Amino acid sequence: MTENRRFLLVRRPNGTPVPADFSLVTEPVPAPPPGGVVIRNHYASLDPAQRGWMDDAESYMPPIPLGDAVRASTLGVVHASDNPRLAVGQWVIGLGGLEDYSVIGPEGFAAPVDISAVASPSNYLSVLGSVGMTAYFGLIAVAKPEAGETLLVSGAAGAVGSAVGQIGKLLGCRVIGIAGGPLKCRRLIEDYGFDAAIDYKGKDHESLVSEITAAAPDGVNIVFENVGGPVMEAEVFTLAHNARIVLCGLISEYNSPEKVGLRNLWQILARRATIHGFLVTDYASQFGEGRAQMAQWLGQGKLRVEEDVQEGLENAYDAFMRLFSGANTGKLILKIDGSQ
Amino acid sequence: MTENRRFLLVRRPNGTPVPADFSLVTEPVPAPPPGGVVIRNHYASLDPAQRGWMDDAESYMPPIPLGDAVRASTLGVVHASDNPRLAVGQWVIGLGGLEDYSVIGPEGFAAPVDISAVASPSNYLSVLGSVGMTAYFGLIAVAKPEAGETLLVSGAAGAVGSAVGQIGKLLGCRVIGIAGGPLKCRRLIEDYGFDAAIDYKGKDHESLVSEITAAAPDGVNIVFENVGGPVMEAEVFTLAHNARIVLCGLISEYNSPEKVGLRNLWQILARRATIHGFLVTDYASQFGEGRAQMAQWLGQGKLRVEEDVQEGLENAYDAFMRLFSGANTGKLILKIDGSQ
Repeated sequence: MTENRRFLLVRRPNGTPVPADFSLVTEPVPAPPPGGVVIRNHYASLDPAQRGWMDDAESYMPPIPLGDAVRASTLGVVHASDNPRLAVGQWVIGLGGLEDYSVIGPEGFAAPVDISAVASPSNYLSVLGSVGMTAYFGLIAVAKPEAGETLLVSGAAGAVGSAVGQIGKLLGCRVIGIAGGPLKCRRLIEDYGFDAAIDYKGKDHESLVSEITAAAPDGVNIVFENVGGPVMEAEVFTLAHNARIVLCGLISEYNSPEKVGLRNLWQILARRATIHGFLVTDYASQFGEGRAQMAQWLGQGKLRVEEDVQEGLENAYDAFMRLFSGANTGKLILKIDGSQ
Repeated sequence: MTENRRFLLVRRPNGTPVPADFSLVTEPVPAPPPGGVVIRNHYASLDPAQRGWMDDAESYMPPIPLGDAVRASTLGVVHASDNPRLAVGQWVIGLGGLEDYSVIGPEGFAAPVDISAVASPSNYLSVLGSVGMTAYFGLIAVAKPEAGETLLVSGAAGAVGSAVGQIGKLLGCRVIGIAGGPLKCRRLIEDYGFDAAIDYKGKDHESLVSEITAAAPDGVNIVFENVGGPVMEAEVFTLAHNARIVLCGLISEYNSPEKVGLRNLWQILARRATIHGFLVTDYASQFGEGRAQMAQWLGQGKLRVEEDVQEGLENAYDAFMRLFSGANTGKLILKIDGSQ
């Protein structure tokens, strides 16, 4: 392949992204900068966080520059290298973009991976990648669950949520999941072993509160929050004293210019709850430990991993939008070149 | 005195309380119930939390029943007793009401105090009472400040806020206060030793953020939150990574039926901050330690305490409203009988 297809952000989305916010262009394959590498991307991770990076808003990473490829974690092979630690042909996970070839400079992130150790290289973007690490460290290092506690997971049928719930069960928690639609709820119980599943769709605040309360009669000790908005506002009314909320994501807010936030913040005080802002990158130095534990559970058949692999960079927009339409279950991954 | 004047809640306030929400009535002096006491109240604490108890809303205490006296911490003398641990004539602090005489049953809270140890008995409702304990445990036990950290206090000229700021200085923090109006801001600097004071009045979000940022160039490590709403929303944009927010009160919300909450909850995630819902009653078993330390600082002249003592139960409404008009500085206390 002598060309580099690139899926560019050309306009900041106003609310829900539309196709015209992006442009698929073809450029020459780049050369590595001094000390850097060029990665031939095979898989890219599609994540709600990318929606946040499209806004011109203060966050934990700079906005994606207009005219640049949509930033993404990618898995690929070193194509050209001016970095003595990364040889041509080496599989790496890196922070690149939705494009055939990503340039990663000497300050960028690119780390070797051993694809002989996994069923599919894409596992490094799911259970052994940031999704798995997010579930592992968010639950274990932040929430510090104890056996017998009740864990409530929102966005529970998603990649992170389903892993969090399964880890919670392995640690002896009672696990309740909130998801959208009866199919997803059935999967929580049948595929992931949750103790209870609640369908938030079409439910008002009171109904949600009473359904969670019925599933958690002693109150919720831990919330693993992926959703935010009205779902979160219902959750806080079910918290036991001293509950911990791991604030991992707010997918309900990413496409809405008007932010709901948490109108009933008072309940956090009244219930002496704690909200922990959590970003998995803070735990990067411990990823070895996390990967080893997740790989062990995986090998023992104790962890079920779903990957929703969509094919072709040309389908990047449709694939990305599966995150927000509720269409995807499991980790959403884009196979950059459908023929690979 | 053979009659019991009682300041009753007769209607739940819709937003800001109005005089017709209350009624001052005269009833016979009650007799103690089995195992309980009757307290002759001399001082009552007026606190923002009382506004919350007036609503029919889920909180950490049941709503004040309509037709009952407004619940309050009071300081007084045992008038009649069926409790062998509390003799007639003993000074006690208790959870009673805005009334001359409060009945406290065997399950209620009434604890002896030694008024010979203080300059004024009212100190037990301020620096040695829940205000002082709130400042002490909220800052020391929840936020765990380290010398050199930057502490931001909202409602800083209030009773809790001014104590928090002074304790922060004693612990070696850089202390910034937010208050309403130039007079209060001057007091923060001149009377309480804050390093910087910011007047929030008439400032929009951007101005507040830039003023706080200018005063805290390395970011804010600890927020002691008494106010909520737009002030808090500005604060979160100034947080350093891993900042701790002690959520102690939300006075900007108590009178507003529409709750703003925290619309930029996302910033808590992006900055890996933690919000700790805090109620001082959880630390009741450690109050002895807290009182001893506060009394020591007080005796050493290291802690300046202001009490705003209003006189007469008949003035309860006007006195209470000082909390919300911004009129009061220091701990607001009602001397129940002006002639005492």
